[in-house]
Amino acid sequence: MAAPREPEVIRDKAAMRAWSRRRRAEGKTIAVVPTMGYLHQGHLSLISAAAASADPVAIVVTIYVNPSQFAPTEDLATYPSDFDGDLRKLTSTGVVDAVFNPPDLYVRGTDRRAAASGGAVSCLEEAAGDGHESWVRVERLEKGLCGASRPVFFRGVATVVSKLFNIIEPDVAVFGKKDYQQWRIICRMVRDLDFAIEIIGSEIVREADGLAMSSRNVHLSREEREKALSISRSLVDARTGALKGNTDCKQIKNKIVQTLTETGGQVDYVEIVEQESLVPVEQIDGPVVICVAAWFGKVRLIDNIEIDTRS
Amino acid sequence: MAAPREPEVIRDKAAMRAWSRRRRAEGKTIAVVPTMGYLHQGHLSLISAAAASADPVAIVVTIYVNPSQFAPTEDLATYPSDFDGDLRKLTSTGVVDAVFNPPDLYVRGTDRRAAASGGAVSCLEEAAGDGHESWVRVERLEKGLCGASRPVFFRGVATVVSKLFNIIEPDVAVFGKKDYQQWRIICRMVRDLDFAIEIIGSEIVREADGLAMSSRNVHLSREEREKALSISRSLVDARTGALKGNTDCKQIKNKIVQTLTETGGQVDYVEIVEQESLVPVEQIDGPVVICVAAWFGKVRLIDNIEIDTRS
Repeated sequence: MAAPREPEVIRDKAAMRAWSRRRRAEGKTIAVVPTMGYLHQGHLSLISAAAASADPVAIVVTIYVNPSQFAPTEDLATYPSDFDGDLRKLTSTGVVDAVFNPPDLYVRGTDRRAAASGGAVSCLEEAAGDGHESWVRVERLEKGLCGASRPVFFRGVATVVSKLFNIIEPDVAVFGKKDYQQWRIICRMVRDLDFAIEIIGSEIVREADGLAMSSRNVHLSREEREKALSISRSLVDARTGALKGNTDCKQIKNKIVQTLTETGGQVDYVEIVEQESLVPVEQIDGPVVICVAAWFGKVRLIDNIEIDTRS
Repeated sequence: MAAPREPEVIRDKAAMRAWSRRRRAEGKTIAVVPTMGYLHQGHLSLISAAAASADPVAIVVTIYVNPSQFAPTEDLATYPSDFDGDLRKLTSTGVVDAVFNPPDLYVRGTDRRAAASGGAVSCLEEAAGDGHESWVRVERLEKGLCGASRPVFFRGVATVVSKLFNIIEPDVAVFGKKDYQQWRIICRMVRDLDFAIEIIGSEIVREADGLAMSSRNVHLSREEREKALSISRSLVDARTGALKGNTDCKQIKNKIVQTLTETGGQVDYVEIVEQESLVPVEQIDGPVVICVAAWFGKVRLIDNIEIDTRS
């Protein structure tokens, strides 16, 4: 355990970039861990991965709740936050050098009408005027899974991550594989747009009972939380079954949907897709991932499990 | 006049980035001039602007005909090129340090079907598979003017410029104001995505008779070239008129359309728009730009003139 060391808190873009360039001039690798705050063990495992990525390394954790990845109907207003608590947790890791916590990352326009219908609409944008209007899209990978029910989500994610990359200029960035589609999208974006950044995908961290860690778990009642365990249980069961030869995806998906529904969940999707392309498969005969999104009460939870029957 | 100095020719992305980082480590500002080659005086004026932008400066000229900004119906196949001639011209400037001339900048997929109808389709993309799929769009500014008749154009431009920025990591980039909408789009993209790059807009360079310089001019017959002078003449006349008080945009546009049509041009558009937002105006009472696109024979030419009746 490293000694407590309080990270420098930086709120300004130019100051952040200058900080990063100074560290690089000192010969350090810059590793960034983008988060929306309300940190838990899952985030801390991303930080551990960042710490292990290079030596010497300067670690920046970003804490920013990005409005452009939320639709107006979603939970931007109630997304949990606790900056002081986050800072204590980051200090206790002993390895975080800076926290980038900007008040806002977007140029806001003067025309506050919502964007014209037909196009994607987030909590950020306006129809006309001089506000933010540049977007990064990963057009195939963004479409399925969470992209189907959250059409502005990955556009917002890819755009804010591009901005953070341009501000911080990291050599390494760590993303959690819990947000599996997000991780694959960022990898594809980095490849396609030639960012000079290595992306590390970090394994899911679970509570002792199997629930995947998420900042949104705090909104679950005790009863909902208990029911939500059906997600990880059904994924582990599906994996065990597949490794025993039950590789028919329709059957596997039906069983997961049934389990989740019976325990009181409302399924958004259950999909079995190739790990890199996220293209749905009918039979498990290569590296796939089962992805689930389901509502328990007012909380939408996601989880996934990788399976490779060949390994 | 500087002494002839042959630029280093670099074809590989990683080598380009390494070159750029070495120059920066030497304390030089990196200035990039993106081109599609077949260089003329207009390009050389961009290089002069790059040379004047900082001291010491390392200048990179990129020569790459970007397939993703051409629709399949457009002139990608016949776009003129003369790499040896370009290199001689760049050498003669005495100020260009490197030429980035990659064979290809995109990851090509294995599925060569064209993209599904409904979406934008360029000479690059595929419907499925693992090829390039990440795009940068500047959603409002890309819509009008050239964007109306060339729906994939600015998506391709913003994307390839993002890639070049990420590969070369310049401090300064120079764009010609002949491609007025392109220049404004790049400025907006840099602002919105937080690229740490200063964009310089460089004035239009014209032939002695007024024709705006363009690599495509080489495709004009002598007769077409003579006729095409009606573009710059009508723009200058419109500006002179506006400064004398003829500020009604409908009248001005009608007159330009009439002149171009009478001289045998086929008008794509004539628009009078605000300089920053590119929003059409009805009356000239602030900084505007008149933008024209017209076909003469098989060549599509663009030109523009800035007007500010208040200055």
